[in-house]
Amino acid sequence: MSEPTRVEAQGDVAPEGLIDAFWSYERALMADDLAELDRLFADGPATLRGDAAGLLVGHGEISRFRGGRGGAPRRTVVEVHVRTIDDGHALVVAVTAPERGGRGQQTQLWQRSADGWVVAAAHVAVPAPAHDSRVWRVVGDPLVRPTGAGPLDGESVAVKDLFAVAGQPVGAGNPRWIERAPVETAHAGAVRTLLGAGASVRGIARTDEFAYSLAGTNAHHGTPPNPQAPRRISGGSSSGSASAVSLGHATIGLGTDTGGSIRVPAAYQGLYGLRPTHGAVTTSGLMPLAPSFDTVGWLTRDAGVLAKVGAVLLPEAAPRAVDDVVVVPELLGLAEPDVRAAVERFVADWGGPVVESWDVPTTAWAEAFRVHQAAEAWASHGRWLTGRLDSLGSDVRERFEAAAQIGPEETAAAARAVAEARATIRDLVGDRIVVLPSAPSVAPLVGSDLGAVRSATLQLTCVAGLGGLPALSIPVTTTAGLPAGVCLVAAPGRDRDLLELAQRI
Amino acid sequence: MSEPTRVEAQGDVAPEGLIDAFWSYERALMADDLAELDRLFADGPATLRGDAAGLLVGHGEISRFRGGRGGAPRRTVVEVHVRTIDDGHALVVAVTAPERGGRGQQTQLWQRSADGWVVAAAHVAVPAPAHDSRVWRVVGDPLVRPTGAGPLDGESVAVKDLFAVAGQPVGAGNPRWIERAPVETAHAGAVRTLLGAGASVRGIARTDEFAYSLAGTNAHHGTPPNPQAPRRISGGSSSGSASAVSLGHATIGLGTDTGGSIRVPAAYQGLYGLRPTHGAVTTSGLMPLAPSFDTVGWLTRDAGVLAKVGAVLLPEAAPRAVDDVVVVPELLGLAEPDVRAAVERFVADWGGPVVESWDVPTTAWAEAFRVHQAAEAWASHGRWLTGRLDSLGSDVRERFEAAAQIGPEETAAAARAVAEARATIRDLVGDRIVVLPSAPSVAPLVGSDLGAVRSATLQLTCVAGLGGLPALSIPVTTTAGLPAGVCLVAAPGRDRDLLELAQRI
Repeated sequence: MSEPTRVEAQGDVAPEGLIDAFWSYERALMADDLAELDRLFADGPATLRGDAAGLLVGHGEISRFRGGRGGAPRRTVVEVHVRTIDDGHALVVAVTAPERGGRGQQTQLWQRSADGWVVAAAHVAVPAPAHDSRVWRVVGDPLVRPTGAGPLDGESVAVKDLFAVAGQPVGAGNPRWIERAPVETAHAGAVRTLLGAGASVRGIARTDEFAYSLAGTNAHHGTPPNPQAPRRISGGSSSGSASAVSLGHATIGLGTDTGGSIRVPAAYQGLYGLRPTHGAVTTSGLMPLAPSFDTVGWLTRDAGVLAKVGAVLLPEAAPRAVDDVVVVPELLGLAEPDVRAAVERFVADWGGPVVESWDVPTTAWAEAFRVHQAAEAWASHGRWLTGRLDSLGSDVRERFEAAAQIGPEETAAAARAVAEARATIRDLVGDRIVVLPSAPSVAPLVGSDLGAVRSATLQLTCVAGLGGLPALSIPVTTTAGLPAGVCLVAAPGRDRDLLELAQRI
Repeated sequence: MSEPTRVEAQGDVAPEGLIDAFWSYERALMADDLAELDRLFADGPATLRGDAAGLLVGHGEISRFRGGRGGAPRRTVVEVHVRTIDDGHALVVAVTAPERGGRGQQTQLWQRSADGWVVAAAHVAVPAPAHDSRVWRVVGDPLVRPTGAGPLDGESVAVKDLFAVAGQPVGAGNPRWIERAPVETAHAGAVRTLLGAGASVRGIARTDEFAYSLAGTNAHHGTPPNPQAPRRISGGSSSGSASAVSLGHATIGLGTDTGGSIRVPAAYQGLYGLRPTHGAVTTSGLMPLAPSFDTVGWLTRDAGVLAKVGAVLLPEAAPRAVDDVVVVPELLGLAEPDVRAAVERFVADWGGPVVESWDVPTTAWAEAFRVHQAAEAWASHGRWLTGRLDSLGSDVRERFEAAAQIGPEETAAAARAVAEARATIRDLVGDRIVVLPSAPSVAPLVGSDLGAVRSATLQLTCVAGLGGLPALSIPVTTTAGLPAGVCLVAAPGRDRDLLELAQRI
């Protein structure tokens, strides 16, 4: 067991045994001695431990966190300051020097218990990394300067790592892919348009591998933080773009939405997001996943910026009044009670929507969507992935492996089902706005089983996906204070009407 | 005065008046009411306040810090947890939501004084920015992948923003310059060599404007942190490269040394640094400052990596034994007592060096160096700077303005003096190693008057600069625990001997 080098404590005379307990803790931390660490933290629901990832409350949460992290970064303690409160309480503030560089700080409130000194509250700070590599592959101040001036002056864009940015390869979230990816010589169409309208590119944001996920839990680069719901997943696959906007690193998250990759992170992180009409925004310079469903979308922290981006990226269209708004109980019912209630509160506050029942096969729709997406995903990437499936995280790998097994008949059947569903959905939506949950649940906790979440999500998100319809996610909050999303879906080409509506609501 | 929205405190019943004091503090913070903030922090030398920039000890230091920062970032408090210790002490942990995004945490130990509740210790954490823009202009994971494999496999380079990196403009630390700077299509020679030897480029690191400073206090981008000496300057002009290495963001800081821009940050931050023989490492793709003195150098955290870089970048040379090492009292005497003592301890521990007195005109040498550097700097940048001097920070501007006034006669006289000094210095050094302080002082506190520091520094650093000699800085520590540098200077071409010696000592 490693023995930390003791430095002399400064400040008050410490109560008996405290300094030894402090160094026992440090030794246990460096040895990742979980039992000893548990023993040295006060038992019970009141114990606190906070770091950059959020505040944990209660011994159980803290113990679970420690059990899952695989040890603390190597460090030495370079200063110790003691502030003795009474014989049974003291604050110990330590300056730490992590082996990898920089300085950290740890503040601990110690209390004397029947079993000796224990930590009642701890606040741990480590030096920030050069950049948060869960969020960004590359980031700059900016990475690419604007090429013109216009309505997006001063805005900054987090570009999902599927779009070409001149001077950089496209990484697609996969380390093996980027090894051979060429450096791009021109910007993707959407990037070029944003730069010309005055925006800068802040950086290239992480994505789920080949965008084939709704979770944001990239196996290689980690899960970007969700600051609105600490220790919950970011949502994906436009995960880095979404977190960058939530964290205030960028004002616009440029992403894609094939099966929900804008709407789901918008809902999970309390952002606005637009999945435009299929084909409305150019996909030039974009790596495809499933071209029948792929759209270029974006996320923002407010409806005004969302609309400003739309004014630049979307084709011109004559505004049409929003007359009929419907909410469909069968779709609402696909959400969990907390999210459903949040959507219902939103609907009640708005006062506009009327209830309309739809007798529709959402399970079959989702399945047709899934198979068609998989067939196209394999058509897009199967050649490269053959022999390289082991370069993928297990969730994405399973999907691609299943995709590889889809035969021509199944593909043809799914294509027919998709075409039918598209016609049905467009008929049902007609010239109205349909209100539904953007995702069926709040952001799952990191480490949850996400397979069932994905299936449930596709049943909601496939409606706009199959229809090729624009879908705008508006942030709402559950009674527990967690973000969720209300989704407004409209007829093809009514993207600008949705953007206008979102600003008005 | 803004009124923060109160959220309900969780946890213990708070002692009377504590919660009101907590919100008074929050209100004062948002209003930057310095008097009220001073009042709400416990008077005396024991009060603590720590954040990512370091730990402040004592009410006076904390008050000075607050007075200088120009207000705290806007935020709301989203959670408050109270842990009551006794009627006169409580810990209050708050989760904060900065307006710009993300989540922060603040831990405060409150105590009841004669004048009411005051903070005895505070630990403040704000969400990390996308990247530390004081250190980096652009950073990635990596920014540029290696182009080959070799001795630098796994190493990462912070490239000073004076070297061409393909796909990026050269920024030179000046925002006006970068507006029109072209995107480079090829890497600078040194960058290309490092990439070919297996290193990646981590990013483009900040520099003082046009490298014309030894401070690292870029007026536009701020002073990179010096983790080995918190709240002290980084040293420059290779400031971002040095801080990146200190912080563990990169293992190699690629920079330049014209008047000390490798040696000074190495000394201030406790790093190894090599200024090579003038002309030994290609300056292709490097923005010039004063070509007679410009060298391509590098900084590392250990002597082994320093040597590995040298093996790749330096010309081949037959190793020669280090026989004579001299220490010159006249040069030692140019340092402040703490640094001088640290160098003397180093010399005593080593046991090799013998004392040799030099009757040399260091003031006149430094002046010749200054004038010649200024004339060449104006020759390099005067055309662009004419009409744009107001784009410079005041320190660099003053130097360039003075440079613009140097007439042809003064230029010629300085050139003669430089040539004479070069001959004298090369004669004096001969085939020996000369030991001198890398810089005359430890890193000055941020906000110090740096004019006198620069003059004193040039008297030491100009020895290698005028001589065109290789100079290697080795980290030492003063008795106060602050970093300082011992500089080893050798004959031209003996760079590899110095690198070997540094590993051996």
